[in-house]
Amino acid sequence: MRSLLIKNAINEGKEEDILVIDNKIHKIDSDIIYQADKTIDGKGKWIIPGFINMHTHAAMTLMRGIGEDMYLKEWLEDKIWPVEQKLDDELVYWGTKLACLEMVKTGTTTFNDQYWRVPAAIKAVEEAGLRSVQPFVILDLLDLSKSSKIKEDCEALFQESKTWSDLHKFAIGIHSPYSVSEEMIVWGSEYARSRGLLLHIHLSETEWENSESIKKHGVSPTAYLDKLGVLGPEVIAAHSLWLSDSDIEILANKGVTVVHNINSNLKIASGFKFRYNEMRDAGINVTIGTDGCASSNNLDMLEAMKTAALVQKAWRYDPTSLPINELMKLSTTNGGKALGIKTGKIEEGWLADFSLIDIDNYAFTPNINFYANLIYSANSSCIDTVICDGKIVMENRIVPGELETINNVNRLYKKLL
Amino acid sequence: MRSLLIKNAINEGKEEDILVIDNKIHKIDSDIIYQADKTIDGKGKWIIPGFINMHTHAAMTLMRGIGEDMYLKEWLEDKIWPVEQKLDDELVYWGTKLACLEMVKTGTTTFNDQYWRVPAAIKAVEEAGLRSVQPFVILDLLDLSKSSKIKEDCEALFQESKTWSDLHKFAIGIHSPYSVSEEMIVWGSEYARSRGLLLHIHLSETEWENSESIKKHGVSPTAYLDKLGVLGPEVIAAHSLWLSDSDIEILANKGVTVVHNINSNLKIASGFKFRYNEMRDAGINVTIGTDGCASSNNLDMLEAMKTAALVQKAWRYDPTSLPINELMKLSTTNGGKALGIKTGKIEEGWLADFSLIDIDNYAFTPNINFYANLIYSANSSCIDTVICDGKIVMENRIVPGELETINNVNRLYKKLL
Repeated sequence: MRSLLIKNAINEGKEEDILVIDNKIHKIDSDIIYQADKTIDGKGKWIIPGFINMHTHAAMTLMRGIGEDMYLKEWLEDKIWPVEQKLDDELVYWGTKLACLEMVKTGTTTFNDQYWRVPAAIKAVEEAGLRSVQPFVILDLLDLSKSSKIKEDCEALFQESKTWSDLHKFAIGIHSPYSVSEEMIVWGSEYARSRGLLLHIHLSETEWENSESIKKHGVSPTAYLDKLGVLGPEVIAAHSLWLSDSDIEILANKGVTVVHNINSNLKIASGFKFRYNEMRDAGINVTIGTDGCASSNNLDMLEAMKTAALVQKAWRYDPTSLPINELMKLSTTNGGKALGIKTGKIEEGWLADFSLIDIDNYAFTPNINFYANLIYSANSSCIDTVICDGKIVMENRIVPGELETINNVNRLYKKLL
Repeated sequence: MRSLLIKNAINEGKEEDILVIDNKIHKIDSDIIYQADKTIDGKGKWIIPGFINMHTHAAMTLMRGIGEDMYLKEWLEDKIWPVEQKLDDELVYWGTKLACLEMVKTGTTTFNDQYWRVPAAIKAVEEAGLRSVQPFVILDLLDLSKSSKIKEDCEALFQESKTWSDLHKFAIGIHSPYSVSEEMIVWGSEYARSRGLLLHIHLSETEWENSESIKKHGVSPTAYLDKLGVLGPEVIAAHSLWLSDSDIEILANKGVTVVHNINSNLKIASGFKFRYNEMRDAGINVTIGTDGCASSNNLDMLEAMKTAALVQKAWRYDPTSLPINELMKLSTTNGGKALGIKTGKIEEGWLADFSLIDIDNYAFTPNINFYANLIYSANSSCIDTVICDGKIVMENRIVPGELETINNVNRLYKKLL
């Protein structure tokens, strides 16, 4: 039995002690006397749930800054795809190590990944002590000759996933409705549903994707997936930027979770009118992700939250859109709900995944509104200490092995260029 | 004669030494031998010019987080204006101290201010060692009975400004075309022009302002100011969000500088389609500002640069818009040009205003593209050391007196609530 005691942290404005036993928040009270294995002085520090990054491609940290200010087609064809051909296990391992380092530093404790070479990635995430959902990615580029190999590889990874620690879930990733054959979309969906797995898919990221779908299938990507019987509460749809009223109704009725990836959408100029209000009002579980570093350049959830709120207010010409309290839910509880993990709340019985925020600096001065300061004024360097699954993954901004990761990535990335 | 030597810093990708004599960059070379008063080891650190924040209301740091997610009218009437009535010299002094602390921490060395109680503000800026332009603000709310008092106060501040150090310029601030009487706009403009002063004005921040101007004057705010003979190369127009083609042509012809204040515009939902490409192509000197902390919550130029680039790409559906090299100019050289100060370049003979950037962290890994990492991946906590006018204002992220400023603001701001 492990124990960790946080003394005098500020929880929703009130100074409290938090006792963690094993991996859960055991007790929250004003003065807990307990001989814990480790005690942290939380005096003057606010406690917030660990962020849940609901859509990323972790190892793409390796491609940070590889193509800037470019059109999507040239960016993919000249920069991203040629580089991805050169990836090996060592690169994915160190790229994921770097991603985990960045997530810890920016207060993310759980992430929903979608990338290649999962066994190499899982090793990195286990070492970092973070939670993740790792999918087998189905991407056949409409070439059915690849089907049997894909099915075999998927089953092999599913079997291997049984050796992973409890911090990780295996999932099915279907790249997108336009890049995967109907047969394999249906196969992946049935594989996921019959085994109780999550299904992670890119959906309506671009206007082009919508018009292609209508050309080919006569309906929107959402309606197409619905027709194939794919949509359900296990589905996590990234981007979902170009949804009609009817698409929103379908996603709401099927209980699909949507991930807003604002920085990536803005930077590649895929679109910016994410229909948050309509989705929320329809009852869709909306969450936030950063996307991978090739497009969004960082994995900073706090930055993604700020940009999401600002742009939502702007394009609606309504400064009351996406207020702070809703924003916090999007990046914490809504993510946990989607992934079926009891993370995202500072409450007894919940997983001990949280951060301590240092407010003794200009960004939190004056301290009139903590959450406004956190989201609109500060940057993620205010995150001082991070706990995941009851274990300290960063204390006083120090992450063990940080320089080794940076040095190894700086040594290896040149293989990709 | 003061001297400061930076050894082995990275300047545009090349390791160089920088010798500062008094307040200027005296020499840049690969190996400078000089017995300087102070030597800084810049090994592995990039050098960039200090940012120039071209539109802010420094002491409004006091109102950080005071009104969130609100409509403009209620925000002003219920939050901002009542609070501003309670300001005194002590509050403006500490509010400006806090602003300067934040600017130093985020790499800004020069700012173009517009606020009340300038003598209290100047004292704070002098102590911080930053450069500023401080205006006398004309705001008569169309009440001509205030004219003679305003003229007297303006002249008194102008006389007092002669006692300021060389780091500061006196200017005329005209609040906006809609809040100041025609008589006082013309008077302020003539006062500025006859004395060689800059003129700082809010222009076309909202659609409402434009339609009111057309109702009252039959023309846009820009055309109205032009008709009054106000526009010229000394004019710095903040926001300039709702400009027609003809407005842009007028501003270009008159040599007016425009300040883009993206975060404030997004958050208050004033608009987001800042017509950067059209202004640049017309030859307008475009710059970047943060606005005050009441609306934008921070004074972080790096964040403003990132948001400006992302939103410009997004609303134009063109990821090549506002590329990194243009963005850097907007926040450095273009600002210096507007203010008539030789700051914003790392070149011999230019003012020694610069920052050293720590790249030994996740945000700069891999280091494929330094400026992409700086703007799109990092946050301002990468700014390690800041020099202004040849003096160190922050070293290793330590600013003298930091806690005293934070404590005093936290003690005093309650007087405003």
